[in-house]
Amino acid sequence: MKMLIQNGLIVNSDSTIRADVLVENGKITAVGSGLDAAGAEIVDASGKYVLPGAIDSHTHLEMPFNGTVSADSYFAGTRAAACGGVTTVFDFAIQRKGMGIREIAQERDALCRPQACVDYAFHVALTDLTDDVLTEFQDAVEYGLMSYKLFMVYKKDGLMMSDADIYKALLRSRETGALISVHAENPDIIDLNIENFLKNGQTSAWYHYLSRPEFVEAEADKRAIHWAKSTGAPLYIVHLANADGMKAVEEAVTEGYTIYAETCPQYLHFTCDVYKREDGRNFVCSPPMKGQASQDALWEGIKKGFITTVATDHCPFTTKQKDWGKDDFTKIPNGCMGIENLYPYMLSEANKGRLTFNRAVQLCSKNPADIFGCTEKGAVLPGKDADIVLYDPAIDFTITNENMHSDCDYTIWEGVRLKGYVTRTYSRGRLVFQDGTFCGEAGWGKFLKRAGRSAESKA
Amino acid sequence: MKMLIQNGLIVNSDSTIRADVLVENGKITAVGSGLDAAGAEIVDASGKYVLPGAIDSHTHLEMPFNGTVSADSYFAGTRAAACGGVTTVFDFAIQRKGMGIREIAQERDALCRPQACVDYAFHVALTDLTDDVLTEFQDAVEYGLMSYKLFMVYKKDGLMMSDADIYKALLRSRETGALISVHAENPDIIDLNIENFLKNGQTSAWYHYLSRPEFVEAEADKRAIHWAKSTGAPLYIVHLANADGMKAVEEAVTEGYTIYAETCPQYLHFTCDVYKREDGRNFVCSPPMKGQASQDALWEGIKKGFITTVATDHCPFTTKQKDWGKDDFTKIPNGCMGIENLYPYMLSEANKGRLTFNRAVQLCSKNPADIFGCTEKGAVLPGKDADIVLYDPAIDFTITNENMHSDCDYTIWEGVRLKGYVTRTYSRGRLVFQDGTFCGEAGWGKFLKRAGRSAESKA
Amino acid sequence: MKMLIQNGLIVNSDSTIRADVLVENGKITAVGSGLDAAGAEIVDASGKYVLPGAIDSHTHLEMPFNGTVSADSYFAGTRAAACGGVTTVFDFAIQRKGMGIREIAQERDALCRPQACVDYAFHVALTDLTDDVLTEFQDAVEYGLMSYKLFMVYKKDGLMMSDADIYKALLRSRETGALISVHAENPDIIDLNIENFLKNGQTSAWYHYLSRPEFVEAEADKRAIHWAKSTGAPLYIVHLANADGMKAVEEAVTEGYTIYAETCPQYLHFTCDVYKREDGRNFVCSPPMKGQASQDALWEGIKKGFITTVATDHCPFTTKQKDWGKDDFTKIPNGCMGIENLYPYMLSEANKGRLTFNRAVQLCSKNPADIFGCTEKGAVLPGKDADIVLYDPAIDFTITNENMHSDCDYTIWEGVRLKGYVTRTYSRGRLVFQDGTFCGEAGWGKFLKRAGRSAESKA
Amino acid sequence: MKMLIQNGLIVNSDSTIRADVLVENGKITAVGSGLDAAGAEIVDASGKYVLPGAIDSHTHLEMPFNGTVSADSYFAGTRAAACGGVTTVFDFAIQRKGMGIREIAQERDALCRPQACVDYAFHVALTDLTDDVLTEFQDAVEYGLMSYKLFMVYKKDGLMMSDADIYKALLRSRETGALISVHAENPDIIDLNIENFLKNGQTSAWYHYLSRPEFVEAEADKRAIHWAKSTGAPLYIVHLANADGMKAVEEAVTEGYTIYAETCPQYLHFTCDVYKREDGRNFVCSPPMKGQASQDALWEGIKKGFITTVATDHCPFTTKQKDWGKDDFTKIPNGCMGIENLYPYMLSEANKGRLTFNRAVQLCSKNPADIFGCTEKGAVLPGKDADIVLYDPAIDFTITNENMHSDCDYTIWEGVRLKGYVTRTYSRGRLVFQDGTFCGEAGWGKFLKRAGRSAESKA
Repeated sequence: MKMLIQNGLIVNSDSTIRADVLVENGKITAVGSGLDAAGAEIVDASGKYVLPGAIDSHTHLEMPFNGTVSADSYFAGTRAAACGGVTTVFDFAIQRKGMGIREIAQERDALCRPQACVDYAFHVALTDLTDDVLTEFQDAVEYGLMSYKLFMVYKKDGLMMSDADIYKALLRSRETGALISVHAENPDIIDLNIENFLKNGQTSAWYHYLSRPEFVEAEADKRAIHWAKSTGAPLYIVHLANADGMKAVEEAVTEGYTIYAETCPQYLHFTCDVYKREDGRNFVCSPPMKGQASQDALWEGIKKGFITTVATDHCPFTTKQKDWGKDDFTKIPNGCMGIENLYPYMLSEANKGRLTFNRAVQLCSKNPADIFGCTEKGAVLPGKDADIVLYDPAIDFTITNENMHSDCDYTIWEGVRLKGYVTRTYSRGRLVFQDGTFCGEAGWGKFLKRAGRSAESKA
Repeated sequence: MKMLIQNGLIVNSDSTIRADVLVENGKITAVGSGLDAAGAEIVDASGKYVLPGAIDSHTHLEMPFNGTVSADSYFAGTRAAACGGVTTVFDFAIQRKGMGIREIAQERDALCRPQACVDYAFHVALTDLTDDVLTEFQDAVEYGLMSYKLFMVYKKDGLMMSDADIYKALLRSRETGALISVHAENPDIIDLNIENFLKNGQTSAWYHYLSRPEFVEAEADKRAIHWAKSTGAPLYIVHLANADGMKAVEEAVTEGYTIYAETCPQYLHFTCDVYKREDGRNFVCSPPMKGQASQDALWEGIKKGFITTVATDHCPFTTKQKDWGKDDFTKIPNGCMGIENLYPYMLSEANKGRLTFNRAVQLCSKNPADIFGCTEKGAVLPGKDADIVLYDPAIDFTITNENMHSDCDYTIWEGVRLKGYVTRTYSRGRLVFQDGTFCGEAGWGKFLKRAGRSAESKA
Repeated sequence: MKMLIQNGLIVNSDSTIRADVLVENGKITAVGSGLDAAGAEIVDASGKYVLPGAIDSHTHLEMPFNGTVSADSYFAGTRAAACGGVTTVFDFAIQRKGMGIREIAQERDALCRPQACVDYAFHVALTDLTDDVLTEFQDAVEYGLMSYKLFMVYKKDGLMMSDADIYKALLRSRETGALISVHAENPDIIDLNIENFLKNGQTSAWYHYLSRPEFVEAEADKRAIHWAKSTGAPLYIVHLANADGMKAVEEAVTEGYTIYAETCPQYLHFTCDVYKREDGRNFVCSPPMKGQASQDALWEGIKKGFITTVATDHCPFTTKQKDWGKDDFTKIPNGCMGIENLYPYMLSEANKGRLTFNRAVQLCSKNPADIFGCTEKGAVLPGKDADIVLYDPAIDFTITNENMHSDCDYTIWEGVRLKGYVTRTYSRGRLVFQDGTFCGEAGWGKFLKRAGRSAESKA
Repeated sequence: MKMLIQNGLIVNSDSTIRADVLVENGKITAVGSGLDAAGAEIVDASGKYVLPGAIDSHTHLEMPFNGTVSADSYFAGTRAAACGGVTTVFDFAIQRKGMGIREIAQERDALCRPQACVDYAFHVALTDLTDDVLTEFQDAVEYGLMSYKLFMVYKKDGLMMSDADIYKALLRSRETGALISVHAENPDIIDLNIENFLKNGQTSAWYHYLSRPEFVEAEADKRAIHWAKSTGAPLYIVHLANADGMKAVEEAVTEGYTIYAETCPQYLHFTCDVYKREDGRNFVCSPPMKGQASQDALWEGIKKGFITTVATDHCPFTTKQKDWGKDDFTKIPNGCMGIENLYPYMLSEANKGRLTFNRAVQLCSKNPADIFGCTEKGAVLPGKDADIVLYDPAIDFTITNENMHSDCDYTIWEGVRLKGYVTRTYSRGRLVFQDGTFCGEAGWGKFLKRAGRSAESKA
């Protein structure tokens, strides 16, 4: 298999060049002009941008949740990914009490392998940080498992980890080169607020926001950063959504600490006002969207470089599932969709001039590749996997649930207008999406055995 | 002319890949494997790094100074550049009263053109900011002249520009896309200190430092940054050498302003202690080397990303010239050499682990290319000029004046040991340096007509 | 009863004047010259400073602790107070589950009333923050109980309050004008450290420090400040002892929040090095003394005004009690003495030039009076209680256990040399200490019904 | 002469007590109850506040300016002062080239002595900082002259001092205990703006503001602070009026430097919008009033304690004089009135709840007394001068030019409504103002020989 993508404009995280791309056997073998086209399929990318596929480093596909499961099967989720230019999907292999790291991953892998349409990898969500697990951090490097998530919330669900757990995990990550990420919200205040709201009959989606407002998230951000500074370990904060936490990241990074902040498209586009809408429960996720000041701070963080990655926390639930919480916001399954919107949204913002295309590629592809050790992803360069997106900056695209590829029956992005859109996605050289149509297959995606953080991501 | 550089490790500012490089007619045409070698000279780069040539964005070659001229002719200086892996040299075309921008550049070009061994460009040093000159900022874009330096010192030499001049230049730069740089020191305190020292017979090189200590530089840094913030224009601070100024840059950048800071190898390697040496006057330059705290702050700034570029302020004077100030530090011609040391020094520090090679390439090549609009420089990528350096990380190299290629009779870098060294330099595909020997020619170098700052450098 | 104190130098928190003081019936009735001495006892204060009595706002007298009780009975403790120039003592009435605020205070009052040698008041230490207790905050204002302490540690002892408790208490304090104080350390990391140390046989007093180092305290300081900022309530941090927490206070105060920081003489004079001494366990208190950087930061905080009060956390245990932990630092009763050393130590530091006498008076008397609503204390002014200290700045005094008035059999202050010392203490006009000898009586001290914070303390 | 002020509420900077005040021979001899009233005039202060007289540390009475003189003679100005509760007036003895410090003061004293209605002192405004003058700093301590002003503007008027002058003066002040104050604005940008505006025919009062906007003042604030930090000398910034400068003060003070900031009532009450009024030129002073953000920042600075004093920069010009600049803002004499409004305005703001009365007294009386060495002023305490103001908090008072006591024919404060007003002013025990009527006399005021800064003001 050989393919030559001609006449496109290659946009990498720090360069924009006009050159052809030669792909052989799923790899990019050369970039330039006058490349040997003998026997190659010719793809004309005139007028298109040639981008590295996005890496959605935060998704929850086919995730069990309170007796149900999130709306996208692994197949459907990775299909939607492919259709949105995402060629690598990370989700969370959640530890049950007593399980070892490899065991967790293997169990999850059994579910994902037959369904995956694009490459995939796991963060391991730790819920039982035994000495054995800490010991296994070292071996896990061998399996290519280098990143862990700890919840600072969800006490009642048995997911919450204590300060001591976070501290231990950070210390151990420093020894082994692993990376700890946290879901940062303060559980105590959330529970208190919920108790008060329910007592007062305040049960609409708006109270979901009010039970976890800005300062509830910010406290946990600051605390997690404090432990990272105290241990000297790097830290990755998932789905940062508030201004005060953003400021804490800025300060720590400026002091010289390695703190990575991830935010999500929904925090960049929506504010908490959505919870006042009739369909407010569809927007319920945790942390919730915040006020305009927080949204502004996140964009400012992107501008200044203190936001490191953008990922989606994709975790859709159907209208029916969401309706569980029609009369009680605490019963709404938490999660929103975004896997198919990530790259188109960020590239559209670039196209509108809010950031450079290079920066969008850096946030959605290069940085996650570097931070999470995906050495063969993140750039259109010789030697990299041919995870390539063709993007037409001239297309006007309006998101509707009809043109999306998730199994969910609605999208929170309904009606959002984008400038430019993905026209093709290649996963290791195989066409998986073209002009609105999925053309990949279940089982194509491979488990990604990762290296540690790249040197570039450590600076 | 065709050449294939095989088996090297290509190090760009944000990627490190193993790939061959095909060069045709002075341009890089492809990067990858299996490239068409027909008719190409084959260069084996096994075990070598393949780097973009460095851009020394701050030099003073053949510069008239107080009735003498700096020790390197334009030929000697660009020869030394080539031998140190520098393939683009910026120096300063200094306005005399009444001259227009193009006039200044043309006059300087007449001197440089026949001598240049590598490509060259000018910053225009403004000393007479008339309305005509401000008007000409716009046309200068057409000539490819986009960057100006203003001195905040040298009142007596007629070089100093007032706050009003800086303010006007910044406002105008914002309108035209030009970039203003400043030499930031406070002239009043310097003059006061000098007067007092001379009165007291304190005339050794050590008093050069004491007359322009940390806070004298820092004040002007802060003031220049204040004007940049007040006008909303970007600012480039040349040869930043003090901790307090570094902090001011950090704060402004963190607030979201576009402030570029350049430092020089001599500030990263030496401290003011050199002025206590018997040959202290050889190290006399302005601003002078500072204390250890400042050196530490500069390295910290490199680590955190607040230092944008490293350049040399290369301006050697011979022993004889330096001896003018044997008994009076104010008579020492100001300037040190470095053009041949910049890239080897920074790469050696990378090789020793102080920064990544990618970051060294970014500081010495990619960033100056982006900031100063050298669109065809700064990376080993298809479409770029074949300004390529081969670097052997295994060489142990000790700098002595004998192995340098300047016309000066000594070097301040004497005895400094480097890990790794440049083995070849190509300027637009032509070999100009190989294994210690210059093999280029006067007149090869071309004047670089520049574009504005690249989008990447504006983030 | 009438007394005229003549010829002294009156030192208040912001003035130093030479004037006589007329006392009638326990009150200061006039300050000035030419006062009516008819029938008055004349006290010659020539060469002496006339100061308001100190307020030790943090003591634990006769405190039950792990089956024993702290070494000073209420009588002995307030006797020592009187002998150190302390004329008002606050200790902690600790709530047991189910008790109401008034109930707690009344129970404690029954113990204190017959023994007290100087006036006394209570902070209520809350351990069971029921809705009833929150409701009673309002009535408590009527009883003169306005200040509460919440422990962020001591989980196992049932004392620890959750983030939700702190948050609720702060909200309620804002409504009622009460003031919340916190003992800020992170319990999780302490427990983790202890577990690890005991496992490794690391049992000396030094490991007490290592189990609660700087960052363990700092985290809780930051968290408490976060809740104060989030609720808009004032906050009082007791026994602040670390640099990073000090910085957090500075930042919050500079942003305009009302955060009071108390430190103790032991943190200003000793460092964690004391835990390496053979008698290290005598110095065991929580939080422990910290490193030199923290001590420096506390003094800097005093200089800049970010330390608001100095109090002692007086809680001595005898050699025998301390010996429980000879072979296991976790068994050492926590607490040190200081009630008799507070004022002499701070005034001695003033006498040595480290702070002004006015500032010492402000920290030890005026500020606690303002913050805790002791409207008749804190200054030598007409209308105030005649709680007066005569201080001889010329005395050289060396602290030994022999010249102290506690019941404890040693003092951590042994051998510390002071410049200047208290020569007389008056409690509401009654002489209670003179030239080294206690001359007060049990039962003299009265319960202080307090008002809210004074307007001055709210700025 | 003996007087007893009965039944008032004495408000000092950090205490509020109900007590009588006994005055004998111009001094306060006692404060309290039961004072010896034999032979004393009894003043009933029931319902009144008894305050220390204000100190206006910044006035320009009978000041020569561009061939005219400011509208208030020394008599009229100090009469107005007395009627506004100001009992000490500082103005500026401006050095002419070649004069010595004592000489300057003596010359000015000759003018003031026969006219002064209240006590007075001088700051010496230096315009010719010769070695002789620097030497005389030491002797000046003997004369009671300890404070100097340096202009960073007014180059054309020969008043501007260079950075070197400021630096030298600061160094010398550190040696001698003197205090340097600066008028901080950047002259270069002002001149540039003026030139541009006049060229464009932009000549209304609004352009006065636009020629010296926020950042023009802020730059000079930062520069002056930089020199203070570099020399380790204290600094006093007069008439601070912009937010960015306020922030610079905050930062330096928080770092531990001694930077005093003075602002004026006009900056606290008016914004630059006044320059759009038809009588805009009446408000022309330098620095000009700024935008709302700056006014907010000044009040925030008062709240947080970073504003140290409030003074007036009183310098009225008549309508006729102001009219010189009807068609050209550069011809408007610079200056506004305020000496009679300072204390009533600040106390009214206290009465309305914006600050405490104690803080108002601190800003207007205690702090200037401490900072400028007026050891017998600033408090109602035994031993102090009987500079006493009776204040009725219940009066509603509307400022009109009719009820003011300046010689000027209008007031910028016309129509401003105050809550509470001064009913009596005593200067060293002599009644000088009562219920709207001046009852003092020319020549009563004495030159104040000052000590250095008090210890309290150094903290």
